[in-house]
Amino acid sequence: MRNDNRDLDTLRDINMTVDFIKHPEGSVLIHVGDTKVICNASIEDRVPPFLRGQGKGWITAEYAMLPRATDKRNIRESSKGKVSGRTMEIQRLIGRALRSVVDLNKIGERTVWVDCDVIQADGGTRTASITGAFVAVVLAFGKLLDAKTIDKMPVTNFLAATSVGILEDGKEILDLNYEEDSTAQVDMNIVMTGAMEFVEIQGTGEEATFSYQQLQNLLELATKGLQEIIEKQKEVLGELASKVGETKSGHAAGEKQ
Amino acid sequence: MRNDNRDLDTLRDINMTVDFIKHPEGSVLIHVGDTKVICNASIEDRVPPFLRGQGKGWITAEYAMLPRATDKRNIRESSKGKVSGRTMEIQRLIGRALRSVVDLNKIGERTVWVDCDVIQADGGTRTASITGAFVAVVLAFGKLLDAKTIDKMPVTNFLAATSVGILEDGKEILDLNYEEDSTAQVDMNIVMTGAMEFVEIQGTGEEATFSYQQLQNLLELATKGLQEIIEKQKEVLGELASKVGETKSGHAAGEKQ
Amino acid sequence: MRNDNRDLDTLRDINMTVDFIKHPEGSVLIHVGDTKVICNASIEDRVPPFLRGQGKGWITAEYAMLPRATDKRNIRESSKGKVSGRTMEIQRLIGRALRSVVDLNKIGERTVWVDCDVIQADGGTRTASITGAFVAVVLAFGKLLDAKTIDKMPVTNFLAATSVGILEDGKEILDLNYEEDSTAQVDMNIVMTGAMEFVEIQGTGEEATFSYQQLQNLLELATKGLQEIIEKQKEVLGELASKVGETKSGHAAGEKQ
Amino acid sequence: MRNDNRDLDTLRDINMTVDFIKHPEGSVLIHVGDTKVICNASIEDRVPPFLRGQGKGWITAEYAMLPRATDKRNIRESSKGKVSGRTMEIQRLIGRALRSVVDLNKIGERTVWVDCDVIQADGGTRTASITGAFVAVVLAFGKLLDAKTIDKMPVTNFLAATSVGILEDGKEILDLNYEEDSTAQVDMNIVMTGAMEFVEIQGTGEEATFSYQQLQNLLELATKGLQEIIEKQKEVLGELASKVGETKSGHAAGEKQ
Amino acid sequence: MRNDNRDLDTLRDINMTVDFIKHPEGSVLIHVGDTKVICNASIEDRVPPFLRGQGKGWITAEYAMLPRATDKRNIRESSKGKVSGRTMEIQRLIGRALRSVVDLNKIGERTVWVDCDVIQADGGTRTASITGAFVAVVLAFGKLLDAKTIDKMPVTNFLAATSVGILEDGKEILDLNYEEDSTAQVDMNIVMTGAMEFVEIQGTGEEATFSYQQLQNLLELATKGLQEIIEKQKEVLGELASKVGETKSGHAAGEKQ
Amino acid sequence: MRNDNRDLDTLRDINMTVDFIKHPEGSVLIHVGDTKVICNASIEDRVPPFLRGQGKGWITAEYAMLPRATDKRNIRESSKGKVSGRTMEIQRLIGRALRSVVDLNKIGERTVWVDCDVIQADGGTRTASITGAFVAVVLAFGKLLDAKTIDKMPVTNFLAATSVGILEDGKEILDLNYEEDSTAQVDMNIVMTGAMEFVEIQGTGEEATFSYQQLQNLLELATKGLQEIIEKQKEVLGELASKVGETKSGHAAGEKQ
Repeated sequence: MRNDNRDLDTLRDINMTVDFIKHPEGSVLIHVGDTKVICNASIEDRVPPFLRGQGKGWITAEYAMLPRATDKRNIRESSKGKVSGRTMEIQRLIGRALRSVVDLNKIGERTVWVDCDVIQADGGTRTASITGAFVAVVLAFGKLLDAKTIDKMPVTNFLAATSVGILEDGKEILDLNYEEDSTAQVDMNIVMTGAMEFVEIQGTGEEATFSYQQLQNLLELATKGLQEIIEKQKEVLGELASKVGETKSGHAAGEKQ
Repeated sequence: MRNDNRDLDTLRDINMTVDFIKHPEGSVLIHVGDTKVICNASIEDRVPPFLRGQGKGWITAEYAMLPRATDKRNIRESSKGKVSGRTMEIQRLIGRALRSVVDLNKIGERTVWVDCDVIQADGGTRTASITGAFVAVVLAFGKLLDAKTIDKMPVTNFLAATSVGILEDGKEILDLNYEEDSTAQVDMNIVMTGAMEFVEIQGTGEEATFSYQQLQNLLELATKGLQEIIEKQKEVLGELASKVGETKSGHAAGEKQ
Repeated sequence: MRNDNRDLDTLRDINMTVDFIKHPEGSVLIHVGDTKVICNASIEDRVPPFLRGQGKGWITAEYAMLPRATDKRNIRESSKGKVSGRTMEIQRLIGRALRSVVDLNKIGERTVWVDCDVIQADGGTRTASITGAFVAVVLAFGKLLDAKTIDKMPVTNFLAATSVGILEDGKEILDLNYEEDSTAQVDMNIVMTGAMEFVEIQGTGEEATFSYQQLQNLLELATKGLQEIIEKQKEVLGELASKVGETKSGHAAGEKQ
Repeated sequence: MRNDNRDLDTLRDINMTVDFIKHPEGSVLIHVGDTKVICNASIEDRVPPFLRGQGKGWITAEYAMLPRATDKRNIRESSKGKVSGRTMEIQRLIGRALRSVVDLNKIGERTVWVDCDVIQADGGTRTASITGAFVAVVLAFGKLLDAKTIDKMPVTNFLAATSVGILEDGKEILDLNYEEDSTAQVDMNIVMTGAMEFVEIQGTGEEATFSYQQLQNLLELATKGLQEIIEKQKEVLGELASKVGETKSGHAAGEKQ
Repeated sequence: MRNDNRDLDTLRDINMTVDFIKHPEGSVLIHVGDTKVICNASIEDRVPPFLRGQGKGWITAEYAMLPRATDKRNIRESSKGKVSGRTMEIQRLIGRALRSVVDLNKIGERTVWVDCDVIQADGGTRTASITGAFVAVVLAFGKLLDAKTIDKMPVTNFLAATSVGILEDGKEILDLNYEEDSTAQVDMNIVMTGAMEFVEIQGTGEEATFSYQQLQNLLELATKGLQEIIEKQKEVLGELASKVGETKSGHAAGEKQ
Repeated sequence: MRNDNRDLDTLRDINMTVDFIKHPEGSVLIHVGDTKVICNASIEDRVPPFLRGQGKGWITAEYAMLPRATDKRNIRESSKGKVSGRTMEIQRLIGRALRSVVDLNKIGERTVWVDCDVIQADGGTRTASITGAFVAVVLAFGKLLDAKTIDKMPVTNFLAATSVGILEDGKEILDLNYEEDSTAQVDMNIVMTGAMEFVEIQGTGEEATFSYQQLQNLLELATKGLQEIIEKQKEVLGELASKVGETKSGHAAGEKQ
């Protein structure tokens, strides 16, 4: 049993409040255990310079934590005058993951800005951000559909993320909380689609290594967890869920397009 | 009648959720109409260099908005690499106001960091921040009292803030929402104590001026509103409210100390 | 009597040298006691992006101190790589105040850059800056009138600023010097027009509060002082003084336009 | 066959010049095909603040490219005044990987600074950096051994990195050059030890996804390539190679320590 | 004859007002023609880290221009958030020049901060800064002498600077004003001591070259001008002038010390 | 004899590898003794804003050192977030020198970016950069000639740089290495053309002065050295060397154009 009484392969409770903030086109407050992230998706009617005139859109993400989201207060990145390497790594990951399930050719010259602001952190903030951001993005495109700005949901598949890891005693676990994350020897973040294909695997041993067999076990744990998370997303999205996949994906690697 | 059907001298609904986030010593989510601010107070066991070795403490504040707290998405200040003049002005105001009702000699060499993060903005974010931050600070000192780290509540009086202003048609109004604020000819922020003494008056006519009589009317409106807001703070603080004032203030200007 | 032998309601000596520097359209060296500020107004034939194409102009201000304007040398803000919160607050105040007495619709798509550089500081640098900057701006528009670039002085009224405050012994005083400012319990900056209407009131008790009656007394002191300062401005401006007000102001709050 | 006539599972030529620069304790110029990186390891006799007084050391890495390492000249990060997210991500990866095969408790309070400067880029700069940096670090520790500053080689195992990927036509390939990298649908960087355990897996589909089976194939390709690269490292290190592993690793995840 | 009716070898009028600002230990307003620079020397009772504990002092300089010192307004370097290459080059030059005539071993662990702030520019601002800064530094050390903090004037020799150049028509001229400087093909700044030894020669042809003979002519012109400028410094310093040289210089290159 | 057994007027060995890096239009690795600099010249088909539409080109230079080019590791300027004064001074010098021998009217609206990256430093990095950069620039223009983008070599003359100096014992020496540079009392960098005309003279006594006679001796030493260096450049450039001077220079100061 784990420090919060979960089984090795049990997720923490997940809760998503849609339309949490009134201004964004899509807004979700996601709770994954004690980790709480506000995920807002904003649609802007222009694209970055490198895409202008190509008739396609872009999705980009920003990630931040409130200073006291964590046990010890952190200095605000705006006060430091620069964004940390960790923050940049996370926001690049979120953006890349979301782009893998949206057909950017179908959204016109628009940018979707996804802001993931962690208001309370207890491990897994980047994976919770991806899971919540996906829902926010679908909501935002829902608004464009309602307004008939676009005519098909451009999201090709569901997308969710979770973490898996190996504790010091060798136990392989799903969905690490902060205490587990701090002591884990291997930490892996997995992003998958609703078709259970991989979008991103980031496995790291800060001061440890892991074997081929351990890797297989971790991938299996993650797959189980992600199926459950995607079910939650479907519930929360209600009717909109059925529109995901309307645009057929040609993106499985090596598949004819 | 106003654009949201209020009378000229009616406040918007105020709601405060205490202990909103688990890590900070004091945490409040304040709603003032559609303006929503997370106010967290963190206690740090040291003071800035200019105060070291003097046996007294410090209170400082930071203020930020989520990028999509507003109707149009704003660029994150951490991305811009610098904090705007407006943000600095607001955080200096919040810190100064809180320091006026806390006896810094009674809190030891500690810093109270107050973080006001606006998650949804509809006018009056700086005054809502002060009102909510005051409650968060009292909660944080309550924790120190419970832990017997300090022996008396060091807060000498209640503190709240609101705005008043003059519309283009000359109407003098209390507690401006965003639409009113955008078109008002005079905008004034007032911070007062529970003894109805002034802590800060900031009255501004961006492209207009105002007379002595108009100033008197605005001060009266503000006083009425602030009495009501302080009643709300007392309700929310419950038993802790009675401890405010335990430390006698010697701070009315010109009064013998 | 005060530390420099003034009565409570006496201003320091004010001296203004016009055309101090040769390049700017308007240039004034103002002395208020030992506070010395170079106020330069520069006319640029374009406006910031947010105003382009609207046929109206803009006024903006920058404020700085030489490193050794003060008793102890300060680090240059260019060396620190950022402008302090105090500086930003002051330059926003100066710009706002000047805009309240200039009809921006009458100056074409031009920006007036007002640079206030304190070369020697002894309290009241921001109010001296406003008083001097007003004269520099009138001089600059005078140049445009001479060149027939504009056909009427676009300045609707005189504008000046001073400080008032309450000392530890409760004395209410006009025009604080540095030593008084350092120990004052309440410090208030007042900006008024030649019509004795308010443009800006910023009253602050860093660690003190003030009553309604004290506020009234301070406003009265400020009004007296500002009348005298505006007389000085008229003397210095000579013939140009009579052109101020040629453009009728529609800016008293609530007045029909 | 590939665009440079390699088989799908063939590495590019690898060449390492040791002692390339005279000042650093360890210096290697590594060529992987047309990718050329100078890897310098510098020993500093102190550790960052968070490790002081613990008797252990630290390894950190920095990564940069000459502006014209690439086909199109890039703006220097020192001119931009900030380090890009990509750069930060890479230098965090290099540091983490190296720390996984060095027993930091055995090097005293020293920091190893590893600088990887790409002078010519043709894909795989981050993996070439890790492979070369490993050799530079062993050389640097060799210097400490020679000087009897430490008494055992603190490097527990060999370490190397390469990339694998999936092309648009579904071909799975080893060691991508720039042209392949630009068009690949899946790109994966793998860092492994001499014991063929994983240290880091970063697999990404920018606009594509990949299946469980594809992942297995890629891991197999990487394993083959990394065995060959580690043989090269052994050759280049000569006698020093035999000292790697003198310090026994307790770092395989979950293994008793 | 030149554009301002001077002969080729005639300096512009030089005027120095000592004790211009009250706070600095040494303060000079220097006019060289229409170029006006405030030179303030501040004594700080500590040295930069690299000199601590060596019992010797340091002199450093900063240089800036008011935004409208020039014909066209410049953006403030504090607003840009960084100091330009030109500014850095000039402040390094001023500091280096002053250090060459001060015996840093005789001033204790003190730093002299020299601030040269150009309030009006008409060519030759860096050489006017050096000439004025020298006087300010002597005044500042005079204060230390009066206070018996040091017992001998630590300045070993006079120091002044001027410019020489070659116009498009080949004319070689002394002390270039802005218009001459803008069109000159060769521009040379010379810093010399009262013993007519060189401290610094910086000769530049932006898009031209110059011969050995032209160089000799320019050096002769500069020597003539600098003798006159040093006479001015002696007049302005009055009695203090006689103390310069009390500390014997051992600094002529190659001379026995 | 000197610390490396050279005569007072002997250069260190100079070696230049052309086409060192494959991407730049011109690329040179220059060795001057143990100083090693990669000089890359990149042609960009546009000019900076201040030159647009004038039909002429621009040359600009950037200079940097690898962190461990020196004996002690330096902090990367990209990590510090700003470029040092020394770096700016050097890159301004390199750009200025190159522009003096290129007819910018003959290269169209193109910018030549010259990157000088010091990979190993042993004194004289800025002069080695100029000498190597000149060759890289000629190579780059050679590419444009080959492509018939331009029809004449726009380089009007050869260009090289070296240092001379005076040691503590009064010896006057050519081409200082790091140890000599550290202890020299006078340090002078000279840039000359193939016609033995001066382009730049920068002579400095950090804490010493020098006489007219010493200056003459140093100029003679430099002239001797620069003739030898230019011979090396001719050898390295081979056939391209003969095209230098095809475009006739009108740039000797004062010469009719």
